[in-house]
Amino acid sequence: MSVAFPRRVERLHALLDERALDGVLISRNANRRYFSGFQLGDAEGAGWSGTLLVTRGAAVIFADSRYTEQAEHQAPGWELVATTGPIQAELPGRLTAASVASLGLEARVVSHADWSALAEAAPGLELHAIDDELVPLRLHKEPEEVAAIARACALTDACFDHLVGWIRPGMTERQVALELERFFRTHGAEGLAFDPIVLAGPRAAMPHGRPSDAVIESGNVLLIDFGCAVDGYRSDMTRTLFVGEVPDAIRAHHDAVREAQAAALAAIRPGVNGQDLDALARERIERDGVPSYGHGLGHGIGLETHEAPSLRKSVSQVLEPGMVFSVEPGIYLPGVTGIRVEDIVALEATGPRLLTTSPREAVVIG
Amino acid sequence: MSVAFPRRVERLHALLDERALDGVLISRNANRRYFSGFQLGDAEGAGWSGTLLVTRGAAVIFADSRYTEQAEHQAPGWELVATTGPIQAELPGRLTAASVASLGLEARVVSHADWSALAEAAPGLELHAIDDELVPLRLHKEPEEVAAIARACALTDACFDHLVGWIRPGMTERQVALELERFFRTHGAEGLAFDPIVLAGPRAAMPHGRPSDAVIESGNVLLIDFGCAVDGYRSDMTRTLFVGEVPDAIRAHHDAVREAQAAALAAIRPGVNGQDLDALARERIERDGVPSYGHGLGHGIGLETHEAPSLRKSVSQVLEPGMVFSVEPGIYLPGVTGIRVEDIVALEATGPRLLTTSPREAVVIG
Repeated sequence: MSVAFPRRVERLHALLDERALDGVLISRNANRRYFSGFQLGDAEGAGWSGTLLVTRGAAVIFADSRYTEQAEHQAPGWELVATTGPIQAELPGRLTAASVASLGLEARVVSHADWSALAEAAPGLELHAIDDELVPLRLHKEPEEVAAIARACALTDACFDHLVGWIRPGMTERQVALELERFFRTHGAEGLAFDPIVLAGPRAAMPHGRPSDAVIESGNVLLIDFGCAVDGYRSDMTRTLFVGEVPDAIRAHHDAVREAQAAALAAIRPGVNGQDLDALARERIERDGVPSYGHGLGHGIGLETHEAPSLRKSVSQVLEPGMVFSVEPGIYLPGVTGIRVEDIVALEATGPRLLTTSPREAVVIG
Repeated sequence: MSVAFPRRVERLHALLDERALDGVLISRNANRRYFSGFQLGDAEGAGWSGTLLVTRGAAVIFADSRYTEQAEHQAPGWELVATTGPIQAELPGRLTAASVASLGLEARVVSHADWSALAEAAPGLELHAIDDELVPLRLHKEPEEVAAIARACALTDACFDHLVGWIRPGMTERQVALELERFFRTHGAEGLAFDPIVLAGPRAAMPHGRPSDAVIESGNVLLIDFGCAVDGYRSDMTRTLFVGEVPDAIRAHHDAVREAQAAALAAIRPGVNGQDLDALARERIERDGVPSYGHGLGHGIGLETHEAPSLRKSVSQVLEPGMVFSVEPGIYLPGVTGIRVEDIVALEATGPRLLTTSPREAVVIG
């Protein structure tokens, strides 16, 4: 995918012009990887261990000695500076040499301590937050990016298929979470996209609950919300299984969630507003007299599990070709049950393409 | 361990007096857990999803709705406030109500965006960085904390014992990394303490290299640096295995590293300076005409894998009972080999106690 990096850096140059900046400093993990190819893990990327500086004349990676070899390999077109001290010791001199008087930074990622230390060490330098301005630059996925998300989604489908044959009543939520992670890691994933949600019975009513030692029992639902990372790109899928015979009311709720999702999926096309899709899905659920989900209908996905666009009641967001996002209505009845069905969609000029393809009707296990 | 929390909060009250503050806001994951018992994962703890406010009159947890149930359970003595908006919308009113005019924050954890938004929303409020002042509060471990670290170390010893019987030449570094994680997760660990380092042959010369598809071959060393988390507390151990017959020079380097570690361990007692231990270990290695390690001799460990105290050349650090830290000299010869031996020590009034007890002589596999 290396051919894409120069084009992406050109978009940073355009941002410099738009915001009248002389340079931008990139610290966020996903942005570092997107613009340069240089990859650090979540724990590694903190602080000053691998930062990009893009000016009109230069593209520089500052990396501490642990990561310089790797940066050279992963980002061959970039000038590499091995850092040994803190940001405020090393950066000001280089900014002055490059005549940078006005610098954009990711204020939501850079700590207040680093920001202040830099401001103090470079008294003439103007610092500007550019978090919001960077979001549109990754909003429309290139074909290679969609292909990577599709690979992560295909692996998630394969994992789901494996789980359906593997899960038995009497297992715990935690066992299922461990097994799905094992499957991903031994089938080519870099790792999980996020801590998986595996919730049995009434526990499924927690939209962000964590796997526990709770036992999967007959008559319950089993909600599994999971995804993996392949070449940096994420997947995210939710299915709600039936363990043996479940009450008719739960079947009816599952039907409502599926129909809500189907209504939203059927309405997706370039130019539609995410707000309107969210309203369509809610309408179907509320028709049965139950409250609809407290979260949004969907979120963008790519190098991060949650990124732009956001499909929710409170946000006007026109959907365009190249956007990749989840569609995940749900019903949560505290103490009773929880049902969610989630798939990933790539919006193309001709309409939506589903990247996750596991059966959406309720699968019965046990 | 819940009886410890009120005593810990008293230390925050003492900090308020020392620094003439009316309150402190705690955002760092390890500090949140230490002072309140409220636990969030690394990805969950970002931003404003679970923050402590301690004033002279109140101990409050601000948590968003995903975490309130859990916070109530884990931190029963704390007042719980469910947040729905950003920090700048919700906090100022509560600070005014509690007459907080001067607030301490962790500037190395709070983003510049959050800090600025709070400063703007509460114009009269003084904000002070308190990162350094919080460090001593967790520096001396309570007996319950040492016991938890010891449990994590014992599980690491058990995992090492398992690996020695399991690893065969022809396996890849990545397979070993996956197996050790599987062992930890199925034997009671919450998870890994950090991404494990598993490096075969000359790759072991990278102090922070990552497991790859490189194959473990006879005649190589295999360096394994790994640890787990038990009840929030971490372990960290390194062993360098011999795969079949290794050259005499490598045996000699391993002997030197072991003797360097033994010299440092023998000198540990209350009152000794970490700098002097580091010098002792380096002296032994350099005696053989090879360069000593580029990192420090050791680091503290507890709720974080790397925390105070630091044992290194450039830092004067008197060691005291209650401190728990690693002792990990090494030899790195780029392109040739890397050797490191690392153990965890709890310093008691009577001297050091080794918490990791796996054999330190070179174990031969294959």
